[in-house]
Amino acid sequence: MNMKEQVKNRKIYLFTPGPTPIPPQVLERMNQPIIHHRSDEFREIMGRVNSNLQYLFQTKQPVLTLSSSGTGAMESTFVNLFSPGEKIIAVNNGKFGERWVKMPQEFGLNVVELKYNWGDAPSIGDIQTALKQKPDVRAVYLVHCETSSGTYTDIKSIAEVIHRESDALVCVDGVCSVGGMELRFDEWKLDVCVTSSQKGLMIPPGLAFVTMSERAIERMKDSKLPKYYFDLGKSLDVYKTNDTPWTPAISLVQGLDAALEMIKEEGIESRWKTHNENAEFVRSQVKLLGLKLFSSFPSDAVTTVEFPQGVESKKFHQILRDDYGIYFAKGQSQYMEKIFRIAHIGFHEKNEFQIAMHGLEKVLI
Amino acid sequence: MNMKEQVKNRKIYLFTPGPTPIPPQVLERMNQPIIHHRSDEFREIMGRVNSNLQYLFQTKQPVLTLSSSGTGAMESTFVNLFSPGEKIIAVNNGKFGERWVKMPQEFGLNVVELKYNWGDAPSIGDIQTALKQKPDVRAVYLVHCETSSGTYTDIKSIAEVIHRESDALVCVDGVCSVGGMELRFDEWKLDVCVTSSQKGLMIPPGLAFVTMSERAIERMKDSKLPKYYFDLGKSLDVYKTNDTPWTPAISLVQGLDAALEMIKEEGIESRWKTHNENAEFVRSQVKLLGLKLFSSFPSDAVTTVEFPQGVESKKFHQILRDDYGIYFAKGQSQYMEKIFRIAHIGFHEKNEFQIAMHGLEKVLI
Repeated sequence: MNMKEQVKNRKIYLFTPGPTPIPPQVLERMNQPIIHHRSDEFREIMGRVNSNLQYLFQTKQPVLTLSSSGTGAMESTFVNLFSPGEKIIAVNNGKFGERWVKMPQEFGLNVVELKYNWGDAPSIGDIQTALKQKPDVRAVYLVHCETSSGTYTDIKSIAEVIHRESDALVCVDGVCSVGGMELRFDEWKLDVCVTSSQKGLMIPPGLAFVTMSERAIERMKDSKLPKYYFDLGKSLDVYKTNDTPWTPAISLVQGLDAALEMIKEEGIESRWKTHNENAEFVRSQVKLLGLKLFSSFPSDAVTTVEFPQGVESKKFHQILRDDYGIYFAKGQSQYMEKIFRIAHIGFHEKNEFQIAMHGLEKVLI
Repeated sequence: MNMKEQVKNRKIYLFTPGPTPIPPQVLERMNQPIIHHRSDEFREIMGRVNSNLQYLFQTKQPVLTLSSSGTGAMESTFVNLFSPGEKIIAVNNGKFGERWVKMPQEFGLNVVELKYNWGDAPSIGDIQTALKQKPDVRAVYLVHCETSSGTYTDIKSIAEVIHRESDALVCVDGVCSVGGMELRFDEWKLDVCVTSSQKGLMIPPGLAFVTMSERAIERMKDSKLPKYYFDLGKSLDVYKTNDTPWTPAISLVQGLDAALEMIKEEGIESRWKTHNENAEFVRSQVKLLGLKLFSSFPSDAVTTVEFPQGVESKKFHQILRDDYGIYFAKGQSQYMEKIFRIAHIGFHEKNEFQIAMHGLEKVLI
């Protein structure tokens, strides 16, 4: 029996920031015979999903379900809310922030990039200064938890200052945070928030979600960018009848229904708390092992750790996987070999983080 | 026990043109513990999928896997191959053909619409005439099987005439046909073909596929339309390493792997033949029951039937569903109540069409 076969028959502990482990309840629902999406049965599911997604985002606004990855849903916000030449601020403090600079540029927007080192995050003062220098910006894009560096941005306080200083829309990439980190769409007066299925929501990738404030929906009318598949107006048109404009990823919606019921039953505040506790535990253990946290603003969704001198990334992940069944994530881009990432989002029991930390200790020895 | 509960516990016979029934082998694979998409395990699956997709399309060209519905994949062809103002011909003989007129118009293309009644199809002569009148068209868009009307278009012969008369790209919506109806991408010299996961491929919706000829790939360089999520250049860049630019719908790819293995094992020609036999059987039975086929060019993927006088659509589908567990599809748009549709694509045994026809006979009595 070679290593690979060993792993094949071993329990897997997935601590990657998407996909995250799928609960058996979700798998079971995805195993139901497939139903037609233009049927009363499906609309009943979609109706429940729509309502529970509002609970997830803590909003009374519609939450639209798209069949795409989170990147697709982010694109939908640019092409529905803006016109070529319009100015927006985008914070780039990691791989995803960088994408939210490049993507709107591709669509002809005038992007003011606020660039930070990976692991760093914008302060309230930074945003205030940027808004004073560019009073005509139409939106500020922020990443709540930058998956690439595990960095937290204080969306709540920054949203306050944006509203005080300007009428720019507050647009949040919540892909890595929603479901795992406190986010209150209505109370924090956010205008746009996006997430996807394979992170805090505990289902496989393939679905993404967008919610928008009333004033964001109002802005859609002025947008001159072409769109079709990602036309959120078409989604809003059929939202009230629990329909989607195109064939949705039905089995994933069935799984989502089960996942959202689990989240609702536990309570979203309880989930935020658990994620925080698990993250605190991992951070404290990492320090106890003499390792250095990479991010200056560690998030409760992903912990990023610098490789100590002499530890080789490839071998590290290989031993963890083959000997312990543990999957951490590599770094991305220039940090590929320099950091590793331990995700806390998704379907995890507390003691699994003990397993993770035990594996980490062993592999370092 | 009410009707709804009765149905809940009964075997379902799904004869809808997407979703189609999911084979147990596919469900089983989608039930495997989820794996990370940036892992050797996933790349191994994706490599096999890529190769089997080439077999499915009968091509040596790369077949790109997108996480979206078929509509998203069709959009990817417009935004990657053309620039605003460029002229294309689009055949509109049903709901989807109509969409392939409206969508490129939204992206600023100059669309020459060849409009037909639903159930009708373009002749070789029609296309020849259109090309003579508009010698500067950059592409001709055709729907191989128009799902809305069950109508077949003779792609092979039309592709020949297009190549003889022009250098327009031959672009085919194969969403409803690929896997169920003969289609030979390389031999027929097609330039673009799109399909999606929930039809002939027998897996749930959420994935879509695009293949392009060398000269179509060459044309991508001239395209000036903005794109990001649907940037096929980004997909091609990572195709050789069995990667996708964004997080793919992992569980659906796992299911796809199983479905493609089934198709390969049976042989694609055998599948085309079986679909043809099942369609022939359904058409002959429909006529025996004194009903009228709706389409003048019936496809082997979907049979469309006109409602006889006095039969009310809603009640018809309700009885079929509640008393027999049989799901046919309604008509679409203006034909919603006027026709019904019986799909042959997907995972069906021959005797299931006897069940379908038996149910149909009973409900008419």
